[in-house]
Amino acid sequence: MERNDEAFCPLFHHAVELIGRRWVGAILRVMLHGVTRFGEIRDLIPGLSDKMLAERLQELQREGIIERHVHDSTPVRIDYTLTEKGRELQGAVEALSDWAEEWDHPNTINLGPVKE
Amino acid sequence: MERNDEAFCPLFHHAVELIGRRWVGAILRVMLHGVTRFGEIRDLIPGLSDKMLAERLQELQREGIIERHVHDSTPVRIDYTLTEKGRELQGAVEALSDWAEEWDHPNTINLGPVKE
Repeated sequence: MERNDEAFCPLFHHAVELIGRRWVGAILRVMLHGVTRFGEIRDLIPGLSDKMLAERLQELQREGIIERHVHDSTPVRIDYTLTEKGRELQGAVEALSDWAEEWDHPNTINLGPVKE
Repeated sequence: MERNDEAFCPLFHHAVELIGRRWVGAILRVMLHGVTRFGEIRDLIPGLSDKMLAERLQELQREGIIERHVHDSTPVRIDYTLTEKGRELQGAVEALSDWAEEWDHPNTINLGPVKE
């Protein structure tokens, strides 16, 4: 059936499991709001440890979604910015934010992160 | 800073980790293409086992995203359909599909599911 030829898409499959991986969506959303510093990202996301944030930032670098910049200052300043590929996630993040705000009311769901 | 007040959103955090959980995005995308039968969903998604599909369908039911229908026929026919809440994920799934098709070319990434 024609509908099924496009129903499964390996590119989408990879993308959705990447941005939905624990903490990744929250990190991207914070960065889309212009936050660039490690400590600031960590402090904005409840429960996110230094170790997990460092791992996720490395993965996002490997995927070409963010870049790490080391500034030659004293003390050395490091920041993380979205690449064009990363910035273009804005539409998907906004669409899902809108959906979540419309449908996931605090009184009807458990708002903790999804458990494995 | 004002930008930070909205940078983290627990509703988005829950939603992105739900749809990005292993197999969930692929299941939703297949269902958004009109596929309703357990065996058909399973056969369309490479590597998805009966056990994992059953678990994920139960989770999506608990989240109010899909409904299970048992038809009083011989043999009994069961199908799964998206609720209004589920159908309204279409925009987010399309936005992410578009992004994935634009950026994740098969020659530049490992297309397997994201590993834990």
